[in-house]
Amino acid sequence: MVHVIDRLYETVASRRSADPEKSYTAKLLAGGVERCAKKFGEEAVETVLAAMKGDKGAIAAESADVLYHLLVLWAASGVEPASVYAALEAREGRSGLEEKASRR
Amino acid sequence: MVHVIDRLYETVASRRSADPEKSYTAKLLAGGVERCAKKFGEEAVETVLAAMKGDKGAIAAESADVLYHLLVLWAASGVEPASVYAALEAREGRSGLEEKASRR
Amino acid sequence: MVHVIDRLYETVASRRSADPEKSYTAKLLAGGVERCAKKFGEEAVETVLAAMKGDKGAIAAESADVLYHLLVLWAASGVEPASVYAALEAREGRSGLEEKASRR
Amino acid sequence: MVHVIDRLYETVASRRSADPEKSYTAKLLAGGVERCAKKFGEEAVETVLAAMKGDKGAIAAESADVLYHLLVLWAASGVEPASVYAALEAREGRSGLEEKASRR
Repeated sequence: MVHVIDRLYETVASRRSADPEKSYTAKLLAGGVERCAKKFGEEAVETVLAAMKGDKGAIAAESADVLYHLLVLWAASGVEPASVYAALEAREGRSGLEEKASRR
Repeated sequence: MVHVIDRLYETVASRRSADPEKSYTAKLLAGGVERCAKKFGEEAVETVLAAMKGDKGAIAAESADVLYHLLVLWAASGVEPASVYAALEAREGRSGLEEKASRR
Repeated sequence: MVHVIDRLYETVASRRSADPEKSYTAKLLAGGVERCAKKFGEEAVETVLAAMKGDKGAIAAESADVLYHLLVLWAASGVEPASVYAALEAREGRSGLEEKASRR
Repeated sequence: MVHVIDRLYETVASRRSADPEKSYTAKLLAGGVERCAKKFGEEAVETVLAAMKGDKGAIAAESADVLYHLLVLWAASGVEPASVYAALEAREGRSGLEEKASRR
């Protein structure tokens, strides 16, 4: 089954051709990279605030907002999720080695 | 197959009991929510900078960093990925309705 | 003559007792530290974006916004400007020594 | 007497010609607008964290850091403090009117 993040990215990417008057995503994309980066940055601030309050429900909600706006920023910038996942897998590999090292 | 984000979350969560001297993730988690939120916020700033430069490779690399530190923030805060995905699915549902409306 | 930043701080601090319906500052202060920190963080993101665009007019305007919201955050948090200036003067002292060292 | 912020700006601006090996400010300026914006953004995150903790000493210290890095960003971007103060004075004017309105 396709992961919710990848399904949502497909939906976001398909909004490039939608009417900015009818789709919030299309409106963000029409504003260009700067507008998308601004919204992503604002949601990151809200995630930090939610974490400092220790409010789990708010952290989950703000994390969903920050993830959605990150996907919009990828779509606005022409970045494919696969290139981000490749970078994450490289990090995962390092973490695996790190874990082995810590088991010794 | 398990998505790289979920595999990485499992690795991150398993580091709660690792040695902070040997694991970067364990060191972050030992610093508590504030330290994890600080790193997440810093990586969000770097993602905004990479987007404004229009450097796709840097956007992918910084996005991987911001995602990793978001997972660490979840682990530090006791937030399960499932609760974030539920919030994303609610948003996905709204997006589906939005798309239908824009097709009329 | 009193510096514009100090005059503005006095105005901001005097708004603690104003009507939130009539004063934007009073509305922010009524929202507490979290609301003030959120606005400050958002304006910091906008300052970063303006700087990356290299738009001097936008940098000046966003810097004014970030300074104003920093003053509001001080008023919300009970921090006096004098305590910030003392920290700046300590930094200024270090800079003076640094300059002397670089002249040798 | 010259305000500490303006004295510090003069010191910062004079570092444009200093040796990056001997002056932290010169090192930041040599890194260009992006490096200065990154540091300013990071200090803004730390100010938000200090505010959420309600630690007045930390708020004052982080505010001094964020102000210093804002001055460095102005120097890197060719923005004069006077242009920021003009924007603040326009805001101060609006605040005065706002106060009059709230007195009625």
